[in-house]
Amino acid sequence: MTNNTLTLALLQLPVGGDVALNVRRAAEGIERLKAENPTLQLAILPESFNAPYGVEHFAKYAESVPDGATCQALSRLAQKLAIYIIGGSIVEREAGRLYNTCTVWAPDGSLIGRHRKIHLFTMNIVAAHGGGVQFDEGAALTAGSELTVVKIGQQKVGIGICHDKRFEELARIYRNMGCSMLVYPSAFCICQGPMHWELLQRARATDNQLFVVTCSPARDNMSGYVAYGHSMIVDPWARVQREAGEGCEFIVERIDFDMVEQVRRQIPIYQQRRTDVYAKAEPKADP
Amino acid sequence: MTNNTLTLALLQLPVGGDVALNVRRAAEGIERLKAENPTLQLAILPESFNAPYGVEHFAKYAESVPDGATCQALSRLAQKLAIYIIGGSIVEREAGRLYNTCTVWAPDGSLIGRHRKIHLFTMNIVAAHGGGVQFDEGAALTAGSELTVVKIGQQKVGIGICHDKRFEELARIYRNMGCSMLVYPSAFCICQGPMHWELLQRARATDNQLFVVTCSPARDNMSGYVAYGHSMIVDPWARVQREAGEGCEFIVERIDFDMVEQVRRQIPIYQQRRTDVYAKAEPKADP
Repeated sequence: MTNNTLTLALLQLPVGGDVALNVRRAAEGIERLKAENPTLQLAILPESFNAPYGVEHFAKYAESVPDGATCQALSRLAQKLAIYIIGGSIVEREAGRLYNTCTVWAPDGSLIGRHRKIHLFTMNIVAAHGGGVQFDEGAALTAGSELTVVKIGQQKVGIGICHDKRFEELARIYRNMGCSMLVYPSAFCICQGPMHWELLQRARATDNQLFVVTCSPARDNMSGYVAYGHSMIVDPWARVQREAGEGCEFIVERIDFDMVEQVRRQIPIYQQRRTDVYAKAEPKADP
Repeated sequence: MTNNTLTLALLQLPVGGDVALNVRRAAEGIERLKAENPTLQLAILPESFNAPYGVEHFAKYAESVPDGATCQALSRLAQKLAIYIIGGSIVEREAGRLYNTCTVWAPDGSLIGRHRKIHLFTMNIVAAHGGGVQFDEGAALTAGSELTVVKIGQQKVGIGICHDKRFEELARIYRNMGCSMLVYPSAFCICQGPMHWELLQRARATDNQLFVVTCSPARDNMSGYVAYGHSMIVDPWARVQREAGEGCEFIVERIDFDMVEQVRRQIPIYQQRRTDVYAKAEPKADP
């Protein structure tokens, strides 16, 4: 194993109303995967992995970062197993405000990244038969305003949460900052999932020539918000390297980052960008 | 038919070494389609529709714009049929330089757009078995430095040529300028086509919530550069609305631009962009 590989795990976990149970299930899953795969270096959890997802739930389940119980459990686990953990997301409470926040933990148990979802999820999809989905995170949450790049082993990794994946600008900036992997803990609804889940992930991968990883909760058709599942690793050629189904499922995969440089050399679009043209052409105000 | 629809045709034409024949075939095709579809308003031709594509061919087949024979034929045809023509691309010669240029003609025969390919095609794909594709347009061509937005009926349409499609920045600026459709005359090689042709087109469509149209030459496995085919219309939901096969094929399709506003209302990502965050975060120099 060279410095240029990384063995990671995606935990597509079910999420119920019992926070302690959700966190214990995540911790037990990571412990088991590490026992079975001693080379495991990074575990990734889903968006809202410790509590039900929904505007009506956010305040009830909010915790402080990094002092809350969920964060402390992740910190202890990272240290105990000496691995990185990208802790999906939880609802963070600070100074009376709520955020959808991903914490990233180093093998010494220290917090090395705190990403507050930048693009809150708003959607008004109307289906022909009267179904669809309406959702507005902004009714309860405050948006973050900082990008988050963490060093995982030798790699720069950009963090986003779910709806952040829709914004190519964010991914482009992460790539410009030198990232070789983007990780999006996500809980796409089953309405937009079939249309856009894989497409967006492959689009970010091919435009930026890096690995793109998502981790979703397992699908639970009885819950108020039904997550799509299909946690996925897409490689820099935009090929789906691994994909989970819909239920509870753990994936362990070795990533070879040499592929990033291979793709960037063979299709050298980064050097071909015409930043001179873009800077000149961008309209000063939106039409 | 409301002001918000447009009936367009894609002509996935074979291209040989006889320029006059290539142009006549294009003109006859457009005339026939207009006769069969009196409501036809726009005809779109492939990249390099009048001559073989290849670095070794560019100088030989170059013409002046708009005085050359190919441009004059397109101008006369647009006027005769009273339709718009997006004239794929030809090699343009001006002041001793060569460009890969798309001309756009109004129903009165006037030139309303001249797009010189901004991102020249460079590729060094190495296949495991020793195949792949190496190509460098820059060895013969000069890149354009201007974006091209034309008004087709009530719609603002952004123009790109083939490799321009790989650059999400260009599509994003066109969308920010108010475009509801992007048209890319293209001749993807059969090496990158299966990997990225549809993906890139659907990515531009879903990120920018507009129609994305490509028009390729027909595939000719005996030619020096084998075009992928699969001319395609993708709608703002990122669904493939129409797709050609590999051979000579004409598509006539009515586009309903009301869908653009529907998608933008239901998934309101344009208003959710965090241009404040992007401006602050973009690294000043590439790493």
